[in-house]
Amino acid sequence: MKSTLTVSAVQQPCDEDRQTNLDFSIEKIHEAAAKNADLVVLPELHLGPYFCQSEDYNNFDLAQTIPGPTTAILSDVAKELDIVIVSTIFEKRAPGLYHNTAVVFDKDGSIAGKYRKMHIPDDPGFYEKYYFTPGDLGFKPIETSIGKLGVLVCWDQWYPEAARLMALAGAEMLIYPTAIGWDPEDTPVEQQRQLDAWVTIQRSHAVANGIPVISCNRIGFEQAPDLATGINFWGNSFIAGPQGEIIISANDSETKLLCCTIDSARVERVRQIWPFLRDRRIDEYGDLTRRFID
Amino acid sequence: MKSTLTVSAVQQPCDEDRQTNLDFSIEKIHEAAAKNADLVVLPELHLGPYFCQSEDYNNFDLAQTIPGPTTAILSDVAKELDIVIVSTIFEKRAPGLYHNTAVVFDKDGSIAGKYRKMHIPDDPGFYEKYYFTPGDLGFKPIETSIGKLGVLVCWDQWYPEAARLMALAGAEMLIYPTAIGWDPEDTPVEQQRQLDAWVTIQRSHAVANGIPVISCNRIGFEQAPDLATGINFWGNSFIAGPQGEIIISANDSETKLLCCTIDSARVERVRQIWPFLRDRRIDEYGDLTRRFID
Repeated sequence: MKSTLTVSAVQQPCDEDRQTNLDFSIEKIHEAAAKNADLVVLPELHLGPYFCQSEDYNNFDLAQTIPGPTTAILSDVAKELDIVIVSTIFEKRAPGLYHNTAVVFDKDGSIAGKYRKMHIPDDPGFYEKYYFTPGDLGFKPIETSIGKLGVLVCWDQWYPEAARLMALAGAEMLIYPTAIGWDPEDTPVEQQRQLDAWVTIQRSHAVANGIPVISCNRIGFEQAPDLATGINFWGNSFIAGPQGEIIISANDSETKLLCCTIDSARVERVRQIWPFLRDRRIDEYGDLTRRFID
Repeated sequence: MKSTLTVSAVQQPCDEDRQTNLDFSIEKIHEAAAKNADLVVLPELHLGPYFCQSEDYNNFDLAQTIPGPTTAILSDVAKELDIVIVSTIFEKRAPGLYHNTAVVFDKDGSIAGKYRKMHIPDDPGFYEKYYFTPGDLGFKPIETSIGKLGVLVCWDQWYPEAARLMALAGAEMLIYPTAIGWDPEDTPVEQQRQLDAWVTIQRSHAVANGIPVISCNRIGFEQAPDLATGINFWGNSFIAGPQGEIIISANDSETKLLCCTIDSARVERVRQIWPFLRDRRIDEYGDLTRRFID
């Protein structure tokens, strides 16, 4: 990792007009580059509305190959601006085989690697198991010119196992493009608990592994196709340091480019002060591969 | 688990006079029982000062067998007050073989089980590897009349693996007796980061596993034997619900009995709403038993 890295994330709405969304993202990437950012992260599936609110096979038409039309555009942007970009795309791998896939573009415009979302949720309003085949690329950091990036996607953020495996494989930061929000029917108290839990679990991955975390969420209310309900995407994107300390964050409704620097020497020092990897009881962790211990 | 459980924790100083400390703990256990608590947790190694600030073989004389003199006393208290007690004792298992061991007394005064601290720290001021052999009882919840208790000790709290293994084995709550504090030479900003990280990682275990967490720390400044330094134990004991929400907490210097109720129906509902165990990628977690993936 470079000794000082400038990292950024784009908190934005993802509306019906896919071209407008992508144009807006690119505008923000330019803004990040103007701030000398080495890296910019876009929200999960940033091209359009979160289509998983219903199960509709017409939505499979939204999927793209990788490489494909969107990666071609972002590849050019990465090269032009000399910046690493993390995008998430509804990937068409083969007819009837789709993934929720993060793509990392290196500064030269090449695709440095991709990560297919491993943990797939399925809850009312989040019917992802219908659309996305669970990832089969494992928990492998993506090597780039600025370091090894532990890219994970949304639901993965609730799993300490995913963060740990990325750290064990040498990830120098964790990156979570995400699309998460409130059910408007939940009480404000419940909504606050959910948001706090979401921030807490991601900060904890920074703490447990002694590495920075970038979490990038969308904003805006998106009506479900049945018009009966919808999701109020809660924003609150943030960048945390290796002790889980929030360096910069956004609120629940603002469009914002988050941008800050990471001091790699401090990251390493934190891992020396709290040497958690040293004391892991790997001799007693075997049952982590069990579903439950009945 | 009972449908409503009243749980409590004693935040207290642990001074030179071991009898005074134990008497004070027992006084607080009486107070908890008067509040109809089903469970009370004492801080890690609550009998006296945190002796691991130096490596001194004379300290091995502080160790006791289990059962032994202290367990006999706490056993009587548990039975008299019809309350489950979680204590932590410097265990003498055999000459030259010592552990940092949590003991759980059931309401009938019996020893329901014990847990030997699995992850052993060793940092300046916390020379635990000198005193404590790493636990060999695994991550097994202790069965009691009020449910299965996932008892872990201090340094374990930084390891998501430990919390997960307890949850997979059916733990209905996580309990962390602890002794952690600040190095007075650290800046206030660094001290705050450390405290926040400690709260965050433990709350995250509640979130990741959908179960309550009780964390019980000591308070007070304890001088190191060389008089050059010491540890300012930071208190901040807390009880959190299954979304990591803090139900009750203490500050960094007050003696306090924390006491609150846990609604087991809500705990189960939270685990239905966020069914993380359902989606674990156990087929891809094998590398968690590796030290590092070089």
